[in-house]
Amino acid sequence: MSLKLHVLGCGSATPVGQRISSAFALRKENEFFLIDCSEGAQMHMKANGIRMQKISRVFISHLHGDHYFGLIGLLSSLHLFGRTEPIHIYGPNLLKKIIDIQMKAGNTHLSFPLHFHKIKANKHSLIYHDDEISIETIPLVHSIPTSGFVFKEKPHKPNLNKDFIEKYDPSVEWILRIKAGEDFVDEDGNCLSNQEITSPSTYKPKSFAYCSDTVYTESVIPYIKNVDLLYHEATFMENMKNIAHDKLHATASEAATIAKAANVKRLLIGHYSARYASLEPLLNEARAIFPHTIAAEEGMVLDI
Amino acid sequence: MSLKLHVLGCGSATPVGQRISSAFALRKENEFFLIDCSEGAQMHMKANGIRMQKISRVFISHLHGDHYFGLIGLLSSLHLFGRTEPIHIYGPNLLKKIIDIQMKAGNTHLSFPLHFHKIKANKHSLIYHDDEISIETIPLVHSIPTSGFVFKEKPHKPNLNKDFIEKYDPSVEWILRIKAGEDFVDEDGNCLSNQEITSPSTYKPKSFAYCSDTVYTESVIPYIKNVDLLYHEATFMENMKNIAHDKLHATASEAATIAKAANVKRLLIGHYSARYASLEPLLNEARAIFPHTIAAEEGMVLDI
Repeated sequence: MSLKLHVLGCGSATPVGQRISSAFALRKENEFFLIDCSEGAQMHMKANGIRMQKISRVFISHLHGDHYFGLIGLLSSLHLFGRTEPIHIYGPNLLKKIIDIQMKAGNTHLSFPLHFHKIKANKHSLIYHDDEISIETIPLVHSIPTSGFVFKEKPHKPNLNKDFIEKYDPSVEWILRIKAGEDFVDEDGNCLSNQEITSPSTYKPKSFAYCSDTVYTESVIPYIKNVDLLYHEATFMENMKNIAHDKLHATASEAATIAKAANVKRLLIGHYSARYASLEPLLNEARAIFPHTIAAEEGMVLDI
Repeated sequence: MSLKLHVLGCGSATPVGQRISSAFALRKENEFFLIDCSEGAQMHMKANGIRMQKISRVFISHLHGDHYFGLIGLLSSLHLFGRTEPIHIYGPNLLKKIIDIQMKAGNTHLSFPLHFHKIKANKHSLIYHDDEISIETIPLVHSIPTSGFVFKEKPHKPNLNKDFIEKYDPSVEWILRIKAGEDFVDEDGNCLSNQEITSPSTYKPKSFAYCSDTVYTESVIPYIKNVDLLYHEATFMENMKNIAHDKLHATASEAATIAKAANVKRLLIGHYSARYASLEPLLNEARAIFPHTIAAEEGMVLDI
């Protein structure tokens, strides 16, 4: 499995030129998780290599328009293109009503099942998991209920030892059973313990945490500890710290301070105020505290 | 007064490349009337010379997403930019609820008054008028309640005769009263009738009609008779007439047939199906019936 993060939009409250507001897609093999969906996000997908019909799950952090106004148009397009695969949407309860009233207004009956999963923003929860990945929420501190998300690969299954394979030539069924933890029993009824015929995978599971929008808060650290990539909003620079706090946003320095305290591998900043024509000062400010910082830009793709 | 039509978007159901769905702005001096507002419309305004704070009134034809999904983002941006001037929105009743629930979800209290005017789609109505312009609805025939709009300049006020001005040198107040139809009374109490001191203006008031979306219907003709510019949807070509009718849309030939029957000066077609990479065939088909046809394209500005 591999995870890649596509940046579709990393502006803040209003679109500015080519910069749209928050929209990210996390690619897991041939499937996309959409994380926030600002106005215009669907228009940026094709050019960014994102096949919209491959979006399986959508995660909406909160109901400020710059994080979800593009969702209704995306759903509408998926419908018009004849999608039949279900889609799962995770977000605040009111989002379901907002979708429903607009579908009703257009007399639209979606061509695909829409499964809505309500998020309680004030509570850390496991909201999805399968054999390969788990997804948890992060309670953030913002002017309305807001959740971040952590995407964590699960540890790979153990490898079968080469000696064992050569000697017993196990069937595919047995390989799967052994990888799932079973002991092996040969044709003569002899039992080999799982431990003696396998070795733990050396693969290090990857993880990505998404924290937007939030004021500086150390309460997020336990949820994002040691992640491979942390996206943390950096709406302002440190010289506008007071305004950042009033608006319940963070500065570039604060994002870097959180990254350092949480011992993450890399920090991605974004959600820039429209006042910053150049991202260089924001990036420099963050790098002074946490050198492994990247400034998000539309079209960027990051291996996690 | 002068009227100019700006084409912001003229695609149909889904955005395709640079072509967004329906969004037009009618410029009246230093003021804009926005007609439909698809997703992404606000992003196209600056490049098209439209100052969004100069939008005074918004007219939404119906609640299919390709005609209004950009409105909530526009209102949100106007708010964030600190607008204080009121805005007037004309549209189906449910639009108000759709705006309200999204403002509530974001805990947003708009910085400007929003005056909502409910349109009854099945009824021709005068929905706005001032000294210079009147705006009426056109009942259209589509899969959900849909209105077109006719924007008509009012006749210019009469001119004061040169002889009269030279002889009496009337005050500004008297000029306005005479233009409004009053007779003139000089200092000695002599009365000069309005008719003898004025001449009718030779200016021909301009008019623009907007018909999107609709199946071919001659019922619109009385409302659009003789307009200077008619925008009529042309989603399909004539060889897809059956599909057009099933979906309650019109073909390029049908748009031209309506233009001819209504004796309009020029026809503007748009709302093209995404299948048409080139507009040439649609334009040729319409021009075969009504030569003064123009194919709408994003960025186009037409003097009315």
